[in-house]
Amino acid sequence: MIGRLNHVAIAVPDLAAAAALYAGPLGADVSAPEALPEHGVTVVFVRLPNTKIELLAPLGADSPIAGFLAKNPAGGIHHLCFEVDDILAARDRLVAEGARVLGSGEPKTGAHGLPVLFLHPKDFNGTLIEIEQAR
Amino acid sequence: MIGRLNHVAIAVPDLAAAAALYAGPLGADVSAPEALPEHGVTVVFVRLPNTKIELLAPLGADSPIAGFLAKNPAGGIHHLCFEVDDILAARDRLVAEGARVLGSGEPKTGAHGLPVLFLHPKDFNGTLIEIEQAR
Repeated sequence: MIGRLNHVAIAVPDLAAAAALYAGPLGADVSAPEALPEHGVTVVFVRLPNTKIELLAPLGADSPIAGFLAKNPAGGIHHLCFEVDDILAARDRLVAEGARVLGSGEPKTGAHGLPVLFLHPKDFNGTLIEIEQAR
Repeated sequence: MIGRLNHVAIAVPDLAAAAALYAGPLGADVSAPEALPEHGVTVVFVRLPNTKIELLAPLGADSPIAGFLAKNPAGGIHHLCFEVDDILAARDRLVAEGARVLGSGEPKTGAHGLPVLFLHPKDFNGTLIEIEQAR
């Protein structure tokens, strides 16, 4: 069911410093910061040949990554995003097999403008998983 | 400098249960477990179209992931592995830019039989980074 690894999201307290690490010592192709106020984050894309890393910093008062950064002040890997062909079919399969979908269970429009859902990290070895209908 | 994301490593307390999650609810292509006693882990490869997830469980008394699982008993994302063309050139660039390489600084033979180094997570926003000379 799951297809490509769309991205690895890393929450960071200082986006400019984190982008400089990936552009400098790691020598990656790094985008300009992009504010996504409706998602409560500012993102920098680290473009790799086969996938991307998304560096996320909180934006606004209700950022979904604020709690994570309170627990991990230096930052850390926040979630993995896998592509699926049909997000409703994916959700139904996951729920039928006992996995918990966060929120209402209805897909929301994610940061890429595509339907997404998040799965409960307690059901997946402490890993927060996003699924995105990529087409 | 960094190239492809070679893999995302997830430490898990129960490898069979974790493999069943990726094969079942997530419907991925999952390998048989492979014991790597010289690396202190047993690994299951979750093969995605563009990269792979490596599920790691401790093997033996001195597993390098034992401490992580003591702190995160349910498991969690352990490290990211990026490919580089020349591991010594990569190391020298990283060190020159102030990043710390773990251990002696000399590459070791990693789980894929290729030279690897690990970078200090405190220098990369709480993310443990492995670099692997992929060819």
